[in-house]
Amino acid sequence: MAEAMELEKERERERAITPRSEDYSQWYVDVVQRAELADYSPVRGCMVIMPYGYAIWENIQKALDKRFKETGHQNAYFPLFIPYSFIQKEAEHVEGFSPQLAVVTHGGGQKLEEPLVVRPTSEAIIGYMYAKWIRSYRDLPVLINQWCNVVRWEMRTRLFLRTTEFLWQEGHTAHATREEAEAETHRMLDVYADFAEREAAVPVIKGRKSEREKFAGAVYSLTIEAMMGNKWALQAATSHFLGQNFAKAFEIQFLDRDNRLKYCWTTSWGLSTRFIGAIVMVHGDDKGLRLPPRLAPIQAVIVPIYKSDEERSQVLEVARATLTKLEGAGVRAHLDDREEYTPGWKFHEWELRGVPVRVEIGPRDVEQEQIVLARRDIGGKEGKRAVPQARLVEAVTQLLDDVQEGLFKQALEFREKHTYEPKDYGEFKEAVERGFALAPWCGSAECEAQIQEETKATNRCIPLEQEPLPENAKCVRCGEPAKERALFARAY
Amino acid sequence: MAEAMELEKERERERAITPRSEDYSQWYVDVVQRAELADYSPVRGCMVIMPYGYAIWENIQKALDKRFKETGHQNAYFPLFIPYSFIQKEAEHVEGFSPQLAVVTHGGGQKLEEPLVVRPTSEAIIGYMYAKWIRSYRDLPVLINQWCNVVRWEMRTRLFLRTTEFLWQEGHTAHATREEAEAETHRMLDVYADFAEREAAVPVIKGRKSEREKFAGAVYSLTIEAMMGNKWALQAATSHFLGQNFAKAFEIQFLDRDNRLKYCWTTSWGLSTRFIGAIVMVHGDDKGLRLPPRLAPIQAVIVPIYKSDEERSQVLEVARATLTKLEGAGVRAHLDDREEYTPGWKFHEWELRGVPVRVEIGPRDVEQEQIVLARRDIGGKEGKRAVPQARLVEAVTQLLDDVQEGLFKQALEFREKHTYEPKDYGEFKEAVERGFALAPWCGSAECEAQIQEETKATNRCIPLEQEPLPENAKCVRCGEPAKERALFARAY
Repeated sequence: MAEAMELEKERERERAITPRSEDYSQWYVDVVQRAELADYSPVRGCMVIMPYGYAIWENIQKALDKRFKETGHQNAYFPLFIPYSFIQKEAEHVEGFSPQLAVVTHGGGQKLEEPLVVRPTSEAIIGYMYAKWIRSYRDLPVLINQWCNVVRWEMRTRLFLRTTEFLWQEGHTAHATREEAEAETHRMLDVYADFAEREAAVPVIKGRKSEREKFAGAVYSLTIEAMMGNKWALQAATSHFLGQNFAKAFEIQFLDRDNRLKYCWTTSWGLSTRFIGAIVMVHGDDKGLRLPPRLAPIQAVIVPIYKSDEERSQVLEVARATLTKLEGAGVRAHLDDREEYTPGWKFHEWELRGVPVRVEIGPRDVEQEQIVLARRDIGGKEGKRAVPQARLVEAVTQLLDDVQEGLFKQALEFREKHTYEPKDYGEFKEAVERGFALAPWCGSAECEAQIQEETKATNRCIPLEQEPLPENAKCVRCGEPAKERALFARAY
Repeated sequence: MAEAMELEKERERERAITPRSEDYSQWYVDVVQRAELADYSPVRGCMVIMPYGYAIWENIQKALDKRFKETGHQNAYFPLFIPYSFIQKEAEHVEGFSPQLAVVTHGGGQKLEEPLVVRPTSEAIIGYMYAKWIRSYRDLPVLINQWCNVVRWEMRTRLFLRTTEFLWQEGHTAHATREEAEAETHRMLDVYADFAEREAAVPVIKGRKSEREKFAGAVYSLTIEAMMGNKWALQAATSHFLGQNFAKAFEIQFLDRDNRLKYCWTTSWGLSTRFIGAIVMVHGDDKGLRLPPRLAPIQAVIVPIYKSDEERSQVLEVARATLTKLEGAGVRAHLDDREEYTPGWKFHEWELRGVPVRVEIGPRDVEQEQIVLARRDIGGKEGKRAVPQARLVEAVTQLLDDVQEGLFKQALEFREKHTYEPKDYGEFKEAVERGFALAPWCGSAECEAQIQEETKATNRCIPLEQEPLPENAKCVRCGEPAKERALFARAY
């Protein structure tokens, strides 16, 4: 027992989390590591995604993959390696990605004739294959997605948010017309927004990237941007309209109905393991993670409470029956019946790991044929209530829905509270210190660069949905005529 | 119409398949390419897994992943890159893998201080992390699997069977005792065998690899071996008992209950996209693929047959209703309502692509409220029968089970028919020309090497289940005393 207490104390120290108000970056790292989402690896810039973090990724994959298939896409797999000359075929593309490439120069003990790049993204290799596969309008559209790893050499890395290697999906589509390709670009942005808001409870703003921030090789890039707990922005997914840029670079042509040879119109779109970082930062609190029920690896954890052996056997019997009932109803449930930890320690542990609903069962509950449910998003007594055992499944599934909705609402209110519409550059500077600034902007890359230099805020996007500007609206920084509002913020 | 005929003829030529009897290797490549499972890429030794092939892989993943989780394993993700010095820590491991490594020497425009190896397998990097994570017996066992890509530089490659990059899963487990680790090694072999036989309808022989054929760094390797259509063997999956070799190389230690610091016992096990090649070669015939229903992306294809417009609308109405009913019953069904191809062309197309059940619906079937079912594993009239529409779902699901069973039975009979127990080396030489030879063997690597030199056959495994040898049994080649029987065959 003394040993158990000692162990508990040691583990208690290990899982201490820096408060957000003290050091937000350290809070983030503490949560990611102590909740066992990810760990540092001995390879510079690469992380290990631990089982609990990977289980979130699996749930993200399921939710997205279903949506991709429902919108007519199929999965495939293209090579990890890309000949360096391929990357060079699209001028902006090579300029954008060159500084970030990992290069294989030796294979099987021999120096390679042409170095191979480890894919930073796959437009080049997929473009080559599409040129080979597509001949006629009958072959279009081609709607393919791939789940894979990519590598972009990074100087400063953060777990999930920016790592040299990361996991993602990249969709690549080819179409007969510009209209169809543009519709696809928007459709996939909508898929991402729907996923983010419904599954991850992360409210997002849909927008267009500025010329300066767009994907290297795109005509334009669309993005969903979310507000983190420190009021910074995070780009959560992007969808690119590539026009005929890659089609021309890789000769992706088709014989149209009118018997003329034409270049295809292509798109690409991606979401990565970075999204897990967004979930941590949007919902997390000083106790640790708060996971949206639809993506949580464990939706409900059952913690038995007892003192005597007699209580133990009675409580565990009900706890096991509870587990069976919840699992039977499709709830991802877990029974924490470890002997070496106290119920209080377990409460903290599962709060840290963000489990949305806790089911407590003690001797009194057994006697009264009830269970106690505690929700992660509302602490203390307010978030707790007893329900009859007979209503277990109904109560837990309802509570999971409530937590899902509650997290979304809280995040949305937080973002709205910290989004400003500054009247002048003075207010603008204050606004980007305190959150998002939505402001009229002249559209020039120079202005954008100067704003960044002066305030550290970047142009996150030009929101797709916005009120028309009043006549004579002026750029918040330079005073030149403004055409639309852009969203500025500090960003990851 | 003339254009459609022309197109059809062109596509007919494109999908011609070399008969197996003429050139088995070419038959294989024809089937893989024409069924659109995979294609060659511009990167030496790397292939593209096309949507239809990838859909098989997704079904393989689902079937295996379910089994891994049921046996207590979790998924995680470890870095693609491994510092070269890590690979060197286990002596046999580095010797085995060195000639096959792809090496990254440059990242982000800089030469790296230490070259990074693209993982050929992940014992080294995972061993490092386990040493960091495991402290006490309470942390054991660690049961982790990862789905990922690996790279092994290959001189001669074949689609799916041997490619520089391939997809696989690799399980890595750490245990407190030898017994537990050995039990895990065998348990996972059983999981693979169960998967191969039940899901892929591929009969396998479970066995132990010889010292010469075992995994570089293992104490011993277990394997499942299958017979291909040309009577060669293919190693379909392996499970390795690593003893304390990697634990000692990477200092994976734990404090045991007795308060003593001990090395863990570890295992690893893997199955790759190579398995898709096995499915092609075990079941395929001169018409193309024959896919086992449980892994087939499309289990039932509906082909409408009509001439007049009136027939067309009646037939299509029933065809659509049929699709809805099948999908509703969980059958992966597809309606081929393309106008530009004739029913006969479609029959061939879906036979080539291995769809287990074809549903034909013509005007007479509409009138008689029936459908015609044709099974892929039995050709001609024998494999066809009409069933009332009311019995559609029941009949199709039963037929899928029948095809699954039929394919397994056929493959098992084929293997049994071509497995020999030669009495002397003369018979042995003939046997390995015609199939598998199960023969007493002295156990020496020298004998094994000489057999390979003289007959091109390799020692596939020492089958786990075998009758005890008679006293005085002698090695089929050298005549020295034999302890057990080994299975010899030409192999991929």
